[in-house]
Amino acid sequence: MSSKILVLAGDGIGPEIMAEATKVLSFVDNKFGLDLHVDEALVGGAAIDAEGSALPERTFELAKAADAILLGAVGGPKWDNLPPAERPEKGGLLKIRAELDLFGNLRPAILYPQLADASSLKPEVVSGLDILIVRELTGGIYFGGPRGIRTLDSGEREGFNTYVYSESEIVRIGRQAFEAARKRGGRLCSVDKANVLEVTMLWREVMEELSKDYPDVELSHMYVDNAAMQLVRAPKQFDVIVTGNMFGDILSDAAAMLTGSIGMLPSASLDINGRGMYEPCHGSAPDIAGQGKANPLATILSVAMMLRYSLAQIEAADFIERAVEKVLDKGYRTGDIFSEGCKLVSTSEMGDAVLAAL
Amino acid sequence: MSSKILVLAGDGIGPEIMAEATKVLSFVDNKFGLDLHVDEALVGGAAIDAEGSALPERTFELAKAADAILLGAVGGPKWDNLPPAERPEKGGLLKIRAELDLFGNLRPAILYPQLADASSLKPEVVSGLDILIVRELTGGIYFGGPRGIRTLDSGEREGFNTYVYSESEIVRIGRQAFEAARKRGGRLCSVDKANVLEVTMLWREVMEELSKDYPDVELSHMYVDNAAMQLVRAPKQFDVIVTGNMFGDILSDAAAMLTGSIGMLPSASLDINGRGMYEPCHGSAPDIAGQGKANPLATILSVAMMLRYSLAQIEAADFIERAVEKVLDKGYRTGDIFSEGCKLVSTSEMGDAVLAAL
Ligand SMILES: CC(C)[C@H](C(=O)O)[C@@H](O)C(=O)O
Ligand SMILES: CC(C)[C@H](C(=O)O)[C@@H](O)C(=O)O
Repeated sequence: MSSKILVLAGDGIGPEIMAEATKVLSFVDNKFGLDLHVDEALVGGAAIDAEGSALPERTFELAKAADAILLGAVGGPKWDNLPPAERPEKGGLLKIRAELDLFGNLRPAILYPQLADASSLKPEVVSGLDILIVRELTGGIYFGGPRGIRTLDSGEREGFNTYVYSESEIVRIGRQAFEAARKRGGRLCSVDKANVLEVTMLWREVMEELSKDYPDVELSHMYVDNAAMQLVRAPKQFDVIVTGNMFGDILSDAAAMLTGSIGMLPSASLDINGRGMYEPCHGSAPDIAGQGKANPLATILSVAMMLRYSLAQIEAADFIERAVEKVLDKGYRTGDIFSEGCKLVSTSEMGDAVLAAL
Repeated sequence: MSSKILVLAGDGIGPEIMAEATKVLSFVDNKFGLDLHVDEALVGGAAIDAEGSALPERTFELAKAADAILLGAVGGPKWDNLPPAERPEKGGLLKIRAELDLFGNLRPAILYPQLADASSLKPEVVSGLDILIVRELTGGIYFGGPRGIRTLDSGEREGFNTYVYSESEIVRIGRQAFEAARKRGGRLCSVDKANVLEVTMLWREVMEELSKDYPDVELSHMYVDNAAMQLVRAPKQFDVIVTGNMFGDILSDAAAMLTGSIGMLPSASLDINGRGMYEPCHGSAPDIAGQGKANPLATILSVAMMLRYSLAQIEAADFIERAVEKVLDKGYRTGDIFSEGCKLVSTSEMGDAVLAAL
C-alpha cells in the first residue's frame, strides 16, 4: 500500500536539513519496501517569494492529500515586515496546522547520553532526561476570537485576544496525552493556571473527568508558573506533560533547551486519525542558512517519528533512530552539539554519516 | 516624617517569616530613626477563617492608607475548594494588586555567590547572574473580560478569557522598565508573542515608540518561547526584561529558579507614585508551615526593597542587604539553601543571625 509524503523544506536552513532527511527517507523506502510517493512543494517565505503566498493553493492541496508531511522550518527577517497574517509563520505554518486539524503536538525532550555536556544544567539534573510534552496546537489563544487592535472612545488603542477552549477540544488532546502516558511511564501532568483563568478551570475539570477512563495513568495538575520552575529545578520528575497551545509553546521550548541540543529534537503534529506533520523543534536559523553548519538530525529523527506514528513502520523508525545513535557514538557532531574531542562535520557530512550507519 | 507600614503575614509559612522580618524592620526603624507606624492585619486564608473574606474591609482600608505593605504569602490546600474568586489568591492577593493599582512588579533574580551550588544550572552559566524582571501586574489576561465558562448551543461548555492591554497600560509599565534599565545595565528586552497575538503586536509597537524617550537604553524584543529557552541556555545575556502579566508570571518564576534559591528573592509591586507592596517570590509552602524550616531572608530582603523604593531610605536598605550577605558569608543556611559544610539554622535562628549582623 503506497503512502503519500509531502516534503516542505521551507526557509533558512530548511532546504539543507531537508536534503539530508530525504536521503535517509529514500534509503529506508528502498530497504523496507515502503512504496512511498514523495512530493515537494513550497511553503513560508520561499512560497511568498515565488508565488506571493505563504501557503499556495498547490501546496495546500498536496498537504490535504498527503498521508504525512515533513516540514523543515519557516520564517526569517526578510518577511518580518509583512502583515502578520501573510508572514511565513501565521500564513503558512499556523494555517496548515489549523486547516488540517493537527491539534496534537508531541514534543519529546530527550537527553542523548552522548551529548550530556551540551546542557546548561548540571549532569545529575538532566542525565537520562526523557519527557514528552503534548501541546494542543489548533486552539487556545492562538486561534481564539474576537482578536485585534481597536481604538477606544478615549482615542487610545487597545489590543485584545481571546483564550478559549471547548470541552471537546480539551477531551481530544486529553485522550491523546493519556494514551501517550499509558505507553510510557504512566504519569501525566496537566499544566494550567486554574487559580486565575476560567478557561483553564474547565481544562482541569475535563482532565479530571477523562482520568476515569485511564485508571492506569496517574494524573496530576500543576500551575504553569510552577511547571516552568520545576522544569528548571528537577525536570526528571515529569513523564508526560499536557497543556494548551500558548503554555505548550513556552514550556516545550524550555524543556527542549534543557537537553542543550535542540538541534536533535523532532516533533509530530497529529490529527484525530494519526495523520500528521513532522518537523524539527528548532527554527529556520537564518543566521547560519546556506553555510552547511545546520544539524540535520532533528529532521532525520522527524522522519523516524513520521514512520512510527503516521505510517506504522516501527521497524524502519527504530532503524533510523539506532543509526543516529551510532553516529553520535562515533563522535560526529555539527557545530551546535560539538564538544572537545569530537569530529566536527557539516550538514551533509552528518547526513552521509547517518546513511553509512544505516 | 512618619510612614505607615501595613504588615500582612498571610498563610502557611507567612507568619514565621514575617516575625523575623518585623524584628529586622523595628531594628532599623530605631537605628535610623525612621519613625515607622506599623499595623498588622489578616489576609488570605487566615482572613477567610477569621472573618469570612480573603480581604476584610479593615485590611483593605489599612492597605489603602499605608505608604507600603509587607506581605508574607497567601494560600493553601485548606482553601482550594472555595470558588476561585473567594480563594486567598484571587480574593486576597490579586484584589489588593488591582485595587491599589500596583501595576509594576519588579522581580530581581540574583545569584548570591555564596549559594552558587544551589542552582541546578552549571556554575559558569549562572555565576554572577543579576537580572530584573519587570512584570505588568494589574492587566492582561489576569483581569481582562469577558471571561467565564458558558454553555454553547451544542450543549457543550466553553471556557474563555480575554488578554487585553491598552496603550496607556503598556506605556506606564514600559516607562517603569526603561527607568529601571537606565539605573542598571542600560539594556531592556521586551518579551511578547507578536508573531501570533495582536495584543502583543501593540505591546511591541508601544515599546518601540517609548524607546525614543530613552536613547540611553538599548531596547530589544524577544518572543516568549525563545525567552524561556534563552533563560535556560544563557540567562546572563539579560539585564532587564519587561513583559505582560501572564508571561511575567511564568518567566519570573523560571528566572528565580535559575538561582536555585528562590527562598532568597524579594519582589516589589508598585503604583505610579512608588507606593508599593513587598513580598518574597516564594509561596506559602504549607508543607513546611509551623516547623521553623522556612527561609526568612526573602522577606527580610523585601523589607530592604521597601525601604529603598517606597521610603527612599537607601542607607537603611543597604544596611540590611549587607547584613544578609554577612550571614551567608558566615555559613548560616536554612534547609532550602543548605549545602555540606554550612550551619543549618531554623527560621528564627536565621532572623537572629541577621539581627546580630546588623
Ligand atoms: C513560529 C511560531 C508561530 C510557532 C508557534 O508559536 O507555534 C513556533 O514557535 C512553534 O512552536 O512551532
Ligand atoms: C498566586 C498567583 C495568583 C500569583 C500570580 O499568578 O500572579 C503568583 O503566582 C505570583 O506570581 O505572585
